[in-house]
Amino acid sequence: MDEFALIEAIRRRAGRPGAAGVAPGTGDAAAALGPTPGHAVVATVDQLVEGRHFDDRASPADVGHLSVAVNLSDLAAMGARPRWLLLALTLPDGDADWIDAFLDGFLALADTHGCTLVGGNLARGPLQIGVTALGECDPDRLGRRHGASEGDRIVVTGTLGDAAAALKFDAGRDSSLGRRLLRPSPRVGTGLRLAQRATALIDVSDGLLADLGHLLGDLGATIDATSLPTSTALREAVPDDHERWGLQLSGGGDYELLFTLREGDAPAELDGVPLTTIGRVTGPGPIRCLDAEGGDVDVATRGWNHFGIADDDHG
Amino acid sequence: MDEFALIEAIRRRAGRPGAAGVAPGTGDAAAALGPTPGHAVVATVDQLVEGRHFDDRASPADVGHLSVAVNLSDLAAMGARPRWLLLALTLPDGDADWIDAFLDGFLALADTHGCTLVGGNLARGPLQIGVTALGECDPDRLGRRHGASEGDRIVVTGTLGDAAAALKFDAGRDSSLGRRLLRPSPRVGTGLRLAQRATALIDVSDGLLADLGHLLGDLGATIDATSLPTSTALREAVPDDHERWGLQLSGGGDYELLFTLREGDAPAELDGVPLTTIGRVTGPGPIRCLDAEGGDVDVATRGWNHFGIADDDHG
Repeated sequence: MDEFALIEAIRRRAGRPGAAGVAPGTGDAAAALGPTPGHAVVATVDQLVEGRHFDDRASPADVGHLSVAVNLSDLAAMGARPRWLLLALTLPDGDADWIDAFLDGFLALADTHGCTLVGGNLARGPLQIGVTALGECDPDRLGRRHGASEGDRIVVTGTLGDAAAALKFDAGRDSSLGRRLLRPSPRVGTGLRLAQRATALIDVSDGLLADLGHLLGDLGATIDATSLPTSTALREAVPDDHERWGLQLSGGGDYELLFTLREGDAPAELDGVPLTTIGRVTGPGPIRCLDAEGGDVDVATRGWNHFGIADDDHG
Repeated sequence: MDEFALIEAIRRRAGRPGAAGVAPGTGDAAAALGPTPGHAVVATVDQLVEGRHFDDRASPADVGHLSVAVNLSDLAAMGARPRWLLLALTLPDGDADWIDAFLDGFLALADTHGCTLVGGNLARGPLQIGVTALGECDPDRLGRRHGASEGDRIVVTGTLGDAAAALKFDAGRDSSLGRRLLRPSPRVGTGLRLAQRATALIDVSDGLLADLGHLLGDLGATIDATSLPTSTALREAVPDDHERWGLQLSGGGDYELLFTLREGDAPAELDGVPLTTIGRVTGPGPIRCLDAEGGDVDVATRGWNHFGIADDDHG
């Protein structure tokens, strides 16, 4: 199939002029979008490179899902509502079946969050997927990365370590751990609710300790390793505390939200999403992780990458 | 230099929170932008792949310039004012000197058009540059690709064929032809002025005939090859009419604007940019190119790619 036909095939499955917030009657050079009056447009881009961020363990639909998920997770960390996506797809050949399966995953997750694919570009080259996500937010309700203070609770959504364990044990999509790695769910709704309430907010993509470092800057923290929220599947797969904590503290790819709340603000859940306090912000200093006896847990704090193929990529 | 340091180096040179239309105090997961009330946000993405869209003939600064130019040219074809850029940069290694030289070209062209680099992502992999350009436009003044009618004039800005000739003769940046290939100037200001006036508007990236086909859809055209606007450098480099016309009709990469005007609307220039009528829109039918004797000019009409490395990539 030639490239014009591939583009037309993508267009047929994607957003159309006339869809919500997309101006009708415009040409094809670019998409014309109608932001909600008074809202900020929140923009982020992330690319997935074959052999770095995914490999054969991920199906084309998984890659499509993942390419949307990582971007929507960034919007969630800003408290923005996702609206539009642009896709820069680089493929070694014009494989219509690959694109179709990729779009299955891409569009299903986009639809779940009311987000429309409004434009993009197709090029030939080493497989890479670049996604630009555009969201909206009341500018007074934007999530902030840098607002934590000494004494704030450190809280995380959901559970941690599943994606890292799936990688370690090469778990496939027939397992709950594998699904966490291959089909992460960005916490979009929770981000919208938390943005005003959290004093600082980030998504866990690089790993808990790495992202906590991004969140706190010069501030320190004490983390209670025994309080890390843990799925039943992870507890069964990794019964040893220290081994499991290592995955939970340094592994990434869970795309949970990590945030700080003022001391008195201690919800156990938000719209059905469990929230767990895992520690406290301290004054300037290191991030310490303590076990049940108050001893330091020794973990690697280097950045983590999806599929663990590389550890030198951050965004 | 590690990747965090590279990102920080890019950030230092790029837009800051507090710059025009960029909300202050937000985190780093995404950029929060303040569109002009009542305006549409116009969004486009294009990626440049090493070995496909550029090669060693282009310096890192040329690649930076080019990656912005192709996107701003898309905004120009919509009549949008460029405001913000996002950069998804994939590099085989963390080469700080390469990035610095790349940013020289990238930021210089962005600055020329009042456009701010507000976010991005850095990954490791085969060299590729993905740029998302966001512009603004009064939604009633958007350029349209599909509005031409039988009898409309077909008009083009500037001159055609220089980039294709530079490629053919391997002209470097010390020549005016070479500069057209390596440092194209997107017609941003002209696009803003033309969007309301042109009945249809596109930029010439794939080649005149290919893009005219995109513009006209089922309509046909008669092009007078002798009227094609030609630089002195091109006329000297390619004195043979038919050879030169071939470059002008099927070569791309000039990033001029191609548009249609109602019959009575025949400006010779717009704000100092020369406009040349090169033909007329006809009813449904083929696009014919005629020489001085009214005979058909025989040219290839296949899509063209920057550096001519491939002919199968369109967006």
